[in-house]
Amino acid sequence: MALVIQKFGGTSVADPDRIREVADHVARTARHGNDVVVVVSAMGKETDELIRLAHEVSGVRPGREMDMLITAGERKAMALLCMALHSLGVEADSFTGSQAGFITDTAHGNAKIVELRPERVKDALAEGRVPVIGGSQGVSTARDVTFLGRGGSDTTAVALAHALGADSCELYTDVSGVFSADPRLVPRARRMAEVSFDELLEMTATGCPKPAMRSVEYARRWGVKLHVRSAFTWEPGTWVHEEDPSMEQAIVSAVTHDVSEAKVTVSGVPDQPGIAARLFRELAEGAVNVDMIVQNVSDHGVTDISFTVPKEDLRRAVEIGENLAGEIGAAGVTSDADIGRVSIIGAGMKSSPGVAATVFATLANDGINIEMISTSAIRISCVVRSQVLEDAVGALHTAFGLDV
Amino acid sequence: MALVIQKFGGTSVADPDRIREVADHVARTARHGNDVVVVVSAMGKETDELIRLAHEVSGVRPGREMDMLITAGERKAMALLCMALHSLGVEADSFTGSQAGFITDTAHGNAKIVELRPERVKDALAEGRVPVIGGSQGVSTARDVTFLGRGGSDTTAVALAHALGADSCELYTDVSGVFSADPRLVPRARRMAEVSFDELLEMTATGCPKPAMRSVEYARRWGVKLHVRSAFTWEPGTWVHEEDPSMEQAIVSAVTHDVSEAKVTVSGVPDQPGIAARLFRELAEGAVNVDMIVQNVSDHGVTDISFTVPKEDLRRAVEIGENLAGEIGAAGVTSDADIGRVSIIGAGMKSSPGVAATVFATLANDGINIEMISTSAIRISCVVRSQVLEDAVGALHTAFGLDV
Amino acid sequence: MALVIQKFGGTSVADPDRIREVADHVARTARHGNDVVVVVSAMGKETDELIRLAHEVSGVRPGREMDMLITAGERKAMALLCMALHSLGVEADSFTGSQAGFITDTAHGNAKIVELRPERVKDALAEGRVPVIGGSQGVSTARDVTFLGRGGSDTTAVALAHALGADSCELYTDVSGVFSADPRLVPRARRMAEVSFDELLEMTATGCPKPAMRSVEYARRWGVKLHVRSAFTWEPGTWVHEEDPSMEQAIVSAVTHDVSEAKVTVSGVPDQPGIAARLFRELAEGAVNVDMIVQNVSDHGVTDISFTVPKEDLRRAVEIGENLAGEIGAAGVTSDADIGRVSIIGAGMKSSPGVAATVFATLANDGINIEMISTSAIRISCVVRSQVLEDAVGALHTAFGLDV
Amino acid sequence: MALVIQKFGGTSVADPDRIREVADHVARTARHGNDVVVVVSAMGKETDELIRLAHEVSGVRPGREMDMLITAGERKAMALLCMALHSLGVEADSFTGSQAGFITDTAHGNAKIVELRPERVKDALAEGRVPVIGGSQGVSTARDVTFLGRGGSDTTAVALAHALGADSCELYTDVSGVFSADPRLVPRARRMAEVSFDELLEMTATGCPKPAMRSVEYARRWGVKLHVRSAFTWEPGTWVHEEDPSMEQAIVSAVTHDVSEAKVTVSGVPDQPGIAARLFRELAEGAVNVDMIVQNVSDHGVTDISFTVPKEDLRRAVEIGENLAGEIGAAGVTSDADIGRVSIIGAGMKSSPGVAATVFATLANDGINIEMISTSAIRISCVVRSQVLEDAVGALHTAFGLDV
Repeated sequence: MALVIQKFGGTSVADPDRIREVADHVARTARHGNDVVVVVSAMGKETDELIRLAHEVSGVRPGREMDMLITAGERKAMALLCMALHSLGVEADSFTGSQAGFITDTAHGNAKIVELRPERVKDALAEGRVPVIGGSQGVSTARDVTFLGRGGSDTTAVALAHALGADSCELYTDVSGVFSADPRLVPRARRMAEVSFDELLEMTATGCPKPAMRSVEYARRWGVKLHVRSAFTWEPGTWVHEEDPSMEQAIVSAVTHDVSEAKVTVSGVPDQPGIAARLFRELAEGAVNVDMIVQNVSDHGVTDISFTVPKEDLRRAVEIGENLAGEIGAAGVTSDADIGRVSIIGAGMKSSPGVAATVFATLANDGINIEMISTSAIRISCVVRSQVLEDAVGALHTAFGLDV
Repeated sequence: MALVIQKFGGTSVADPDRIREVADHVARTARHGNDVVVVVSAMGKETDELIRLAHEVSGVRPGREMDMLITAGERKAMALLCMALHSLGVEADSFTGSQAGFITDTAHGNAKIVELRPERVKDALAEGRVPVIGGSQGVSTARDVTFLGRGGSDTTAVALAHALGADSCELYTDVSGVFSADPRLVPRARRMAEVSFDELLEMTATGCPKPAMRSVEYARRWGVKLHVRSAFTWEPGTWVHEEDPSMEQAIVSAVTHDVSEAKVTVSGVPDQPGIAARLFRELAEGAVNVDMIVQNVSDHGVTDISFTVPKEDLRRAVEIGENLAGEIGAAGVTSDADIGRVSIIGAGMKSSPGVAATVFATLANDGINIEMISTSAIRISCVVRSQVLEDAVGALHTAFGLDV
Repeated sequence: MALVIQKFGGTSVADPDRIREVADHVARTARHGNDVVVVVSAMGKETDELIRLAHEVSGVRPGREMDMLITAGERKAMALLCMALHSLGVEADSFTGSQAGFITDTAHGNAKIVELRPERVKDALAEGRVPVIGGSQGVSTARDVTFLGRGGSDTTAVALAHALGADSCELYTDVSGVFSADPRLVPRARRMAEVSFDELLEMTATGCPKPAMRSVEYARRWGVKLHVRSAFTWEPGTWVHEEDPSMEQAIVSAVTHDVSEAKVTVSGVPDQPGIAARLFRELAEGAVNVDMIVQNVSDHGVTDISFTVPKEDLRRAVEIGENLAGEIGAAGVTSDADIGRVSIIGAGMKSSPGVAATVFATLANDGINIEMISTSAIRISCVVRSQVLEDAVGALHTAFGLDV
Repeated sequence: MALVIQKFGGTSVADPDRIREVADHVARTARHGNDVVVVVSAMGKETDELIRLAHEVSGVRPGREMDMLITAGERKAMALLCMALHSLGVEADSFTGSQAGFITDTAHGNAKIVELRPERVKDALAEGRVPVIGGSQGVSTARDVTFLGRGGSDTTAVALAHALGADSCELYTDVSGVFSADPRLVPRARRMAEVSFDELLEMTATGCPKPAMRSVEYARRWGVKLHVRSAFTWEPGTWVHEEDPSMEQAIVSAVTHDVSEAKVTVSGVPDQPGIAARLFRELAEGAVNVDMIVQNVSDHGVTDISFTVPKEDLRRAVEIGENLAGEIGAAGVTSDADIGRVSIIGAGMKSSPGVAATVFATLANDGINIEMISTSAIRISCVVRSQVLEDAVGALHTAFGLDV
């Protein structure tokens, strides 16, 4: 008999039919002899809807009131799911974040868990009942209702899995797992049966949309095995766990891509110590997240510095660059939003020389120019023109033998 | 400076525009130097919507989960109203029923207040803040969330008015007060500037739709002055208070009507002691609410007993009557759903003989036959054919000088 | 037997209960022997909701698609109202704007009626049926679905009243009529039994929120008698019709106010012919709606020009002013958004000298300074500090004998 | 360059994010050089919601008004999708069923297409535009708006594919294709790359939930190739086409199950000609759909007849049975709702003897008793106790080599 945490996202419980289907699955899991703890998000887009309502009502939105408002969403979902479970003969009790023992700091809207005392959850389990917990909720040390932020239900689930010593933590969503590439771009992409925490973190950092990065970080830290799977097809999905050193590792597991960044180039920068440091310090102080950086070889004492930033930070980054350019006598600042990034990820890259060469050769072969490169131990990312991004993803997926 | 309780019903806060308009009114009241405590219902028809969702999801709906679900409604409204107040520069804090100190019994869905400890509400007032309380909510002695039932927000407001010693309790709604007759039937009906608790209770009992009877009973018991008024036109409405013995009283203040009852007649009942008592005891045991009763004079040792019951109880009443008729040898049971009841209400009737005669003459004059009559100290009700009900209401409204 | 047009706004049909209540009223009107044509808006805030959805979905919103989208709202309301009428035994048919014969130009989003051929409406009436028409809809000369704009249901109703020769046109809303002042500011304001087209147009132009000005203009042009009344209390409201020369007219009928405008002052303007003309021509070209204008007496060859504009146009007005100030050598441009306007309206002002003097004396008496003045034959408007606006409205309401 | 019909169901366009994601996919398909015609259902559960509203409003719901009401749903979805396409630079026009040329009979609520004249759709395609058609809509020969019924969007798509000579018809939904068994019961089930029309029809008839049977029948009749796939993961799904006689066929392709039926047994029936015929004629006249039938060997001149009916028809079936039992002198009628049906489907069964034997042996091996059996050329169905249904499905899935 296992203890399983099952977390259901908004689309999984978007309407009465879906809630009943979820209840059916929870009941089946319990009937097969498992202890089940359920974590549930607000129905469908209800959290967005509540935030929108708040914006329509007022330009001033105190955090305490926003959290009071937003937590109404999970409250509905968890009570309804309990009713659906009762109608299947499964005794279930709903618990708010506060009742489930999630003590947080007072950072309304994005509260951090400071302590977890799930006594009522344990009591319910001991009585053979299914506890259904509102995700992303807590109560602050000042006794106010708090919200853990978007994607916080995953965190609630992972934290409970850790605290209760669960055997696994299932994150149900509207996709059937993690794919070796985005199937819209690469129809021959395949669902991965398993992926390591490190690989998945690199993947979510470079464009893979789910699950939320924060919960994967928690799961890695606490060693909580995740199972990312679909609440629509219910087929087995992708297991996420520690890398297993005894297994032979695929050199490349997945190809990801994103178009969320833009490139900024400061040209004609005097090639003196400290100039680049000053640029990136000022960007950091301006809350601009710099990702990739490339500096050209100095040419007659001047050089070009290029870097990428999220598109929403582009305007701010250019302003900071222009201000600095004036002071340090640089030639100018240009920007380019028409780029895309393709990344290959694989735990086996650590022990496989020559991967980068294959990347370069593959892209060159297709006439695709690489504008910037960055690497980690298990990832190689290349910036290319956005127009050829789709081709680049497909070519690399084929080159590394990932096609179905 | 006065302390005012302002309660806003669902239509008053149905959407963001309405919430802002309500906030504007609360802010104006505070700006005029009053302390204000706000009680708010769920937005629009949200409570109905939540109940409907529960019915769609499950045939089994434990009270604990229903109350967890339904209380999400006021939670949204109160948080949004607080935000709207903040945007007008009014500091406001939302409180759930539990936070506001409403301790109830454990009768989920229709909980009764057993104690009220509004310390946090008092503290907020002392700091010059506007407390906004979710209506109809509490926490049970077993520490579960409870709901006071439909119309419970009025009760929350009256209870707070009593506990805080408020100067008045304003019940905002979508009508502009209490009328001397239903303006749909009698366009020349007028809004009453004031009405006594006793009169209003008789009126609500005989068809006047608002406010909820239970809250009027509480207000009478605790001597809380009510002001029933519109959150749409904002004009002054109807004051409800103790009868003032020094004032000259109108003999008749209002004419009400309803078509919610049906008539049952058990004919040919042996005229023996205890037969009627047995009939009405069995109806009471069958949870049938009998309202008016008429027994004909005995004719050759048998008599007819007629009584009215709510239409939804009609079928059950007839069954009980038929079962008994067999046992006691009565001739049969007939029923008639095509009746209406017209009532005149007025505190001055107590000291004015001849009112009934005027009623009978007025109806007779219009050729309207009276089928049943019942009276209280301040009310006379007549059952007539439903087809002539509208005529009866208009004729009595004119006869007693109530036309504008 | 009369032919009555009954138009129900969004709040009147916001939910199933309201739709049934409206159907009940329509059925009663028909039962009393009238022919009824119903015009219905979208339920509650549905039009806003649809527009919001469109904004969430796309930054590009072609007019043809917007009108296809928005007209879904009235379609729902009209079909549901027909069902409710059928359940009361009243035969009713819903008609889209196209089916009802509203031919419009192709100005999507704000189409103008170019022809009205209500044959199907007439046929339904002839068969004793109640036609229920979707408000604010038409079909363009290019055969696309069109929308007449916000408040267009009133226009639909007035146009049908004219085309069908209706005896009256009832505009049902959530307030109980037109008031002699805003009851929020002046609780002793009273509902006006009647008002002339001219007075009501002046009132809506100076802050009275309902009904929509455009429909009043149509009604005046076509001589359609309006009855503005409540779909919540159903009491008789305010009749709007031609001024009756035989009646003695109240000198002042109502006091209105608004805070929607801001004041702009161009100071130190050279006092030369054509300068002011140029300023206001450029403002007109910049689509700034100038309302009141005051020019100081020239002082040493320079003068100050002040004018009011809607607050949403303020920024643009100041820019235009500043550009011009540079060219013509004016001293500068200042603006002030902290103003309010109070207006008194009355058809009897035309024949009553001394009204302005009473206004000035009344405000002076309360220590209220008048910053700008504008008048029409039946209106006097004064700009005052927004902080004293409420006092000004109340003082004038009392001074002209309007208190209940 | 291909002509592709893409049909998106309600969950695929449930909210603005989803509509944008769908637009992105349509745009990508067009960008790859295809002509695309889109068919779209109402957003999420909106059709259910509209029907629910109608039920709340009225007990009388004329078909003409219901269809006017319901078609508002697709109207919204198609207009919003067009806007989203425009924002991606794709010119698109929405068309109602009427505008797209769907002429139907006058059977409101479940209208049949009598003619399809898609001239405006063809014109839009010829101009390089993407036509977006509201699914399940038409206009009747009496010029009223009609609805094709639930699941009618699939029919709209297939009919357009046929009329326009499309290369394929993609049905996007929330599951990723057709599975060899329900993954909830058999986690090792696999998505089928392809399936024949005949197999899929047998599957949907015996419990496979999607796509709607009616559209598969149309597709088979017209030879329209279907591609059932996910609008969430966008991975390639299941192709549905004519059986290819040259291919080697799997003996068994899928295992389906359902618990929607109940068993009725009429016992002690006199074993005379015509008795059974009379029973089933009366059931047919009572609109009871009989599915499987088993008659025991006669025992002393009497026999037992068992048959299955949908659970919602059970009560009616028992009544009919009991009435007849009296007349013909049968012993009695019993019913049993606690049954389940497992079916194996495979085009290869036609040429493979011994399949039934394998079924029986497999179930016997697991101690599962078979209560009734029915077969077609490509299907064998067995009724078993509902408690062992899950085991039966799993055992047969394994026995016929379908496990991944």
